[in-house]
Amino acid sequence: MQALLQEILDHVRPLLDQGHVAQYIPALAQVAPQQLGIAVQSLDGQLHCAGDARTPFSIQSISKVFSLVQAIGHSGEGIWDRLGYEPSGQAFNSLVQLEVEKGRPRNPFINAGALVICDINQSRYATASLSMRDFVRRLAANPRIVSDAVVAESEYQHRARNAAMAYLMQSFGNFHNDVDAVLRSYFHHCALSMSCVDVARAFAFLANSGYCPHSREQVLTPRQAQQVNAIMATSGLYDEAGNFAYRVGLPGKSGVGGGIAVVVPGRYSICVWSPALNASGNSLAGLRALELLSERMTGSVFSAVPQPAAAAVHDAL
Amino acid sequence: MQALLQEILDHVRPLLDQGHVAQYIPALAQVAPQQLGIAVQSLDGQLHCAGDARTPFSIQSISKVFSLVQAIGHSGEGIWDRLGYEPSGQAFNSLVQLEVEKGRPRNPFINAGALVICDINQSRYATASLSMRDFVRRLAANPRIVSDAVVAESEYQHRARNAAMAYLMQSFGNFHNDVDAVLRSYFHHCALSMSCVDVARAFAFLANSGYCPHSREQVLTPRQAQQVNAIMATSGLYDEAGNFAYRVGLPGKSGVGGGIAVVVPGRYSICVWSPALNASGNSLAGLRALELLSERMTGSVFSAVPQPAAAAVHDAL
Amino acid sequence: MQALLQEILDHVRPLLDQGHVAQYIPALAQVAPQQLGIAVQSLDGQLHCAGDARTPFSIQSISKVFSLVQAIGHSGEGIWDRLGYEPSGQAFNSLVQLEVEKGRPRNPFINAGALVICDINQSRYATASLSMRDFVRRLAANPRIVSDAVVAESEYQHRARNAAMAYLMQSFGNFHNDVDAVLRSYFHHCALSMSCVDVARAFAFLANSGYCPHSREQVLTPRQAQQVNAIMATSGLYDEAGNFAYRVGLPGKSGVGGGIAVVVPGRYSICVWSPALNASGNSLAGLRALELLSERMTGSVFSAVPQPAAAAVHDAL
Amino acid sequence: MQALLQEILDHVRPLLDQGHVAQYIPALAQVAPQQLGIAVQSLDGQLHCAGDARTPFSIQSISKVFSLVQAIGHSGEGIWDRLGYEPSGQAFNSLVQLEVEKGRPRNPFINAGALVICDINQSRYATASLSMRDFVRRLAANPRIVSDAVVAESEYQHRARNAAMAYLMQSFGNFHNDVDAVLRSYFHHCALSMSCVDVARAFAFLANSGYCPHSREQVLTPRQAQQVNAIMATSGLYDEAGNFAYRVGLPGKSGVGGGIAVVVPGRYSICVWSPALNASGNSLAGLRALELLSERMTGSVFSAVPQPAAAAVHDAL
Repeated sequence: MQALLQEILDHVRPLLDQGHVAQYIPALAQVAPQQLGIAVQSLDGQLHCAGDARTPFSIQSISKVFSLVQAIGHSGEGIWDRLGYEPSGQAFNSLVQLEVEKGRPRNPFINAGALVICDINQSRYATASLSMRDFVRRLAANPRIVSDAVVAESEYQHRARNAAMAYLMQSFGNFHNDVDAVLRSYFHHCALSMSCVDVARAFAFLANSGYCPHSREQVLTPRQAQQVNAIMATSGLYDEAGNFAYRVGLPGKSGVGGGIAVVVPGRYSICVWSPALNASGNSLAGLRALELLSERMTGSVFSAVPQPAAAAVHDAL
Repeated sequence: MQALLQEILDHVRPLLDQGHVAQYIPALAQVAPQQLGIAVQSLDGQLHCAGDARTPFSIQSISKVFSLVQAIGHSGEGIWDRLGYEPSGQAFNSLVQLEVEKGRPRNPFINAGALVICDINQSRYATASLSMRDFVRRLAANPRIVSDAVVAESEYQHRARNAAMAYLMQSFGNFHNDVDAVLRSYFHHCALSMSCVDVARAFAFLANSGYCPHSREQVLTPRQAQQVNAIMATSGLYDEAGNFAYRVGLPGKSGVGGGIAVVVPGRYSICVWSPALNASGNSLAGLRALELLSERMTGSVFSAVPQPAAAAVHDAL
Repeated sequence: MQALLQEILDHVRPLLDQGHVAQYIPALAQVAPQQLGIAVQSLDGQLHCAGDARTPFSIQSISKVFSLVQAIGHSGEGIWDRLGYEPSGQAFNSLVQLEVEKGRPRNPFINAGALVICDINQSRYATASLSMRDFVRRLAANPRIVSDAVVAESEYQHRARNAAMAYLMQSFGNFHNDVDAVLRSYFHHCALSMSCVDVARAFAFLANSGYCPHSREQVLTPRQAQQVNAIMATSGLYDEAGNFAYRVGLPGKSGVGGGIAVVVPGRYSICVWSPALNASGNSLAGLRALELLSERMTGSVFSAVPQPAAAAVHDAL
Repeated sequence: MQALLQEILDHVRPLLDQGHVAQYIPALAQVAPQQLGIAVQSLDGQLHCAGDARTPFSIQSISKVFSLVQAIGHSGEGIWDRLGYEPSGQAFNSLVQLEVEKGRPRNPFINAGALVICDINQSRYATASLSMRDFVRRLAANPRIVSDAVVAESEYQHRARNAAMAYLMQSFGNFHNDVDAVLRSYFHHCALSMSCVDVARAFAFLANSGYCPHSREQVLTPRQAQQVNAIMATSGLYDEAGNFAYRVGLPGKSGVGGGIAVVVPGRYSICVWSPALNASGNSLAGLRALELLSERMTGSVFSAVPQPAAAAVHDAL
């Protein structure tokens, strides 16, 4: 598998020149574009890596999955009083739909939805940022994961769009805590600095019926894990969810830091990272790498015949 | 399995009183609401039914899958020059997004997208309606399937909304044939009268890597079949695609006639039918039946552990 | 005044090179751009012209005023059950607002509103096209005015966008006659071929409390005439109504043929024509000419002090 | 005229029971609905009043005119780099259009536009609130006008929607000062407490070619005054601008405190006040009173024949 991963990275490396690193905050704009890594955590305990798989990057919107899981963990189905789980069909930071639908975000993976989830968590935890950081450390079995304070502060300085969303939801009664305080937490989550290895490990429980093999905790029930995967499958890649389902066919969540986390239920959790993005804000080389990986190794959840290797791994579960 | 299907139908039967039969054309408004059926076609060749599984109903939007498959069959990836495969986030018959996106429909399962697909097929076949009817007869192994002329004519009389969409796309250069002629074909497809057994059989190839076990033809390549499943998963249930992924977790396509076709890749094709609809236009009892079926038998494509029975069936493939 | 008109035309003539003749139908795209004319009908009976004031042009959307006046004439306030008189804030041919507002057009000067007005007139007149032509001939005191059959046919061939609007309104129950028949009438009105002199004369009744000095008929009541002027002032220039109020400050109605009709209540009716349009579809040189005319002669209805000359003319009324 | 004003108030008084006092902040919700006043400032120096014409009320959005005039006063045409003067066709506090049009408000009388104007003034004045208060005191010749601190604070506590707009504009680079500071100024302007007499006096310069007869200052040039009137005519009454032009036919600006200021160019400035509002947020009785006043005394700027009395007053100017 090591060889396959290396071969895939070599194949997609030319795409690094075609994308553009996220420009909306200076701290991210300075990231070197020529980086590319992948990590595959198999549920039989093996970890395979290639490229810059151990270089920390800003996980950005991948953190929306962790926030959602935290909220489901303490509030269960109750969170769906505040937001939905339908694809939005609009840009991740659009206010149009949010106004038309009276402050109720479509799903937890657009910014408005993630802000509501953070608002829910803010009501629960005395120190929401630390609570999240510790949660992620346990999931990834890495006690050295930190949030990059420079990135978080830079995002706060450029908070206007997210602040507009939060205030719009507050005007509809769907935001309960101080806007600035929640934004601070939100940006700390986004600024978590993790490597492909960290993210792949931290997503293992979603491929494993909600059980985290590293921390040995049942993070979610099997049904809840399946539901989070379903939401990722329909809403996890900004306005490319359909494209990702069509080309890769696996639940996933991307971030503008260039990371994409993917779940192969029952078999693998995967993270690919490359900071150069396409027009939709997804890692250009990362998308292509996952498409190849899906074709050659993992298969798609929508295909009839799992790959032989995968079946073998599955038996070993 | 027979017992399980019967048990599920008994469980959801109280919901028949809560939905409403589609009212937009008289021919559909007259359908008796107290009907409920299910058929499960296993890829090992077994067919299991319960309830009114052999009563023909109007397949309506389920026909959009057949049209799409026909178009992919003769034009392949080329069709995506004319439309996309992203979830729309809007009502199935909305013109708002269509205008903003300059006449390019989001996906083939909203009305605008299905009309473009029909326009593509119209350019290909001398008699598009007959070509479709014969195609469906082969897939379902039932030479007696017909389109209900009364329903088709009634839909044509109430064509205003679909005509508006077609003309709007024509104004953007994305509609090539005579609007009325394409609408006639479209309504003939919608008015196809099929039973749960017919539909379950006709969808078998999508669970079976594109190979139809009845007609013994490779309808699509394995990858194309997987892609059609992916589009169903993100856009197949009107504005409830997210809800269906969350609750059922399988690719599916619904129609306002009350039918829902579902694919369990590698294992089953399923059709449930009950004409009483929820507010989103999907069969109320049908949705609940599929949720139970997913929990107890088929599993979800997003869950880590397939059900034991399913695994057995899989082995037999 | 003759000299003033000539001076204004000379001043704006350089703008003829900057606009673009309407391209949406071939018949209009062939019009020579270097044409410019103006006619001012004074209520004391004098007519002043300059430039190509006697060259017929396609009045296009200016006809929307005549249709509205006809409808008010036979149905009075009842027409407002079917449409409004608020500015739309959207492009003249947008379907977005029309869908959101359930098929009720904002005002009679966007295409959807004009189509509803034509639908109302179609229900009233056996031959709506002839009825309109004869009405305009009386108002302009010119029995030779005709509708250009080539233009009307060309518009019909490119009817897709207007057909989409009509069908969308029909889907909401706000369109009662056959769509094609109403479109035929609508395009015949748009294709009326009139000169600046014709239009200026035909608009005189709106400056004259509803009384047409040429045909000696009370076309509208004084209050109705004032109301039509009010609608022109808030909605008469596509999405430049605010700009026109700001720069010219007079009720007016433009057409993509390059004509703009203007009313100075109690004093003048005016028509300027030049086929080269700005990005909003209004005559570029025509707009500037009217701005100068407002500053130097007519004043604006929003200014405190009418011009001396105007006051004199007023006394002579 | 005194008798006419009294007669009109008596006529519309039954409408006081049909509207609803603004509820969005507690301080306004407590205002007694059974209040009704009118003041007419004639340019010949006479002031006519009836009803509660000397009771102070919260001017709210009427303040948007004063802010605009201040901004034009120091920055002239330059302000139009930041916003437009087209009718919006949308609710006064909608963010939809603002996002689509990339943070550039349609006009200065919707909230977003007024916030940009306040942002411009904030950059100019060290203490924007005091500067505005003093400006209004001069225009109204009343040194005791104050801003109601309770109302202003209440509005700030309920600032969410306006904060959302300001941050959205900031995200597009069209908001330069601290959002909270500008909101504080904005709410102080809205909370100005003035009577019908105050407002009628303060609007006199707009009827008088920009010259304030009380403070003897040329506030605006004649052309600027005409332009402000034009903007009021197309955008001054929330989403009833068309209705107001149709029924009253005069430039005006309303506020949710129940006041409506109106300009009869060259003749009068008027303020009517009654706190019970219609569904569009305009004073129900106030609108009807102005419609009667327009019919019986002032005429409309869109009518051909000014009323005799008005002509007399005009001569006296």
